[in-house]
Amino acid sequence: MKLHFSPTSPYVRKCMVSAHELGVADRITLLPSKAHPVDRDATLVATNPLGKVPAFITDDGLVLYDSRVICEWLDSSFNGRLFPREGAARWHALVLQSLADGILDAALLARYEEAARPEALRWADWQAGQIDKIRTALLSLDQAPEQLQGRVDIGTLSLACALGYLDLRYDAWGWRTRFPRLAEWAAGFMQRPSLQASWSA
Amino acid sequence: MKLHFSPTSPYVRKCMVSAHELGVADRITLLPSKAHPVDRDATLVATNPLGKVPAFITDDGLVLYDSRVICEWLDSSFNGRLFPREGAARWHALVLQSLADGILDAALLARYEEAARPEALRWADWQAGQIDKIRTALLSLDQAPEQLQGRVDIGTLSLACALGYLDLRYDAWGWRTRFPRLAEWAAGFMQRPSLQASWSA
Repeated sequence: MKLHFSPTSPYVRKCMVSAHELGVADRITLLPSKAHPVDRDATLVATNPLGKVPAFITDDGLVLYDSRVICEWLDSSFNGRLFPREGAARWHALVLQSLADGILDAALLARYEEAARPEALRWADWQAGQIDKIRTALLSLDQAPEQLQGRVDIGTLSLACALGYLDLRYDAWGWRTRFPRLAEWAAGFMQRPSLQASWSA
Repeated sequence: MKLHFSPTSPYVRKCMVSAHELGVADRITLLPSKAHPVDRDATLVATNPLGKVPAFITDDGLVLYDSRVICEWLDSSFNGRLFPREGAARWHALVLQSLADGILDAALLARYEEAARPEALRWADWQAGQIDKIRTALLSLDQAPEQLQGRVDIGTLSLACALGYLDLRYDAWGWRTRFPRLAEWAAGFMQRPSLQASWSA
């Protein structure tokens, strides 16, 4: 198995966290790739026409993207339980994954705005709108932290990756101070070996 | 069932197309919602903390988002076959959905750049990078149109929604002229009643 990889991509991390949870991380060859939205990588585009990481190639040559599809394929192929097969548990896991991915989409757009875009072309209202999406998403979790207790599924793992990305890029924003009940859950959950092993930044 | 709705959202359209395919569109109450990324809608945020459409509420009160989760729930709940349950067909459908959603993400970012962002703050290279993502994605499909033949699944339906959004916002770009084999497939597929019924723009 091969994974088009970028060391700070939180979506790549989701895939590696899933692989660690399933015990197959060491069977994946990492292909260093450049997924910049402006300066595009032709080798990556040949695998994923969108030119985005993560993109994944199975031993049978099946090409998979994006992170949701890769994680579900890994879980399905290696007898995992990260994607509950049916019932309420499945929808709760998938909705929490959507929330976490939405936090990441907003954080990445905010990051592009302040790190990639020329300074003279930055729009403060856009940046503030993205950060506010993150704020309302985390607030909803902080108000009902009991929903996270005892769960190890693609939802909670995606959330941990989203929070880890905020640590990497928006540490000064202080999500732990703003959302202390969420922080309490994360302090324990982030000790999982899959999360400890997967962040190479 | 209730759906937070915006008439020109292609992701909302994916949900309504799925509902039409499953014969349950008339059982969904549409809740007009405003999902602007800067001027955020508090009512929508109360359902989906990210403040995005589509967001969906089942008759049992289960809240679902984003479009992938809503479409899979509809398919699973009403005995559809839009999401093949297992095997290669499932991965092909999910990867094509990812490609189509990636086209839409790029098209929406391009649209925000030229329609929402103040003119003095627009970045031509960003806009060009998003359009190039759409170009390479459609090129990959135009080079292998046989993969689309005879398929009615969440992949081909998502692709039709993506192409319909290009018709709405980027008609002058001329995707049909650039990708004639893809256009030939779309000319037939877009006649499906689910697609004809679902675009209210």
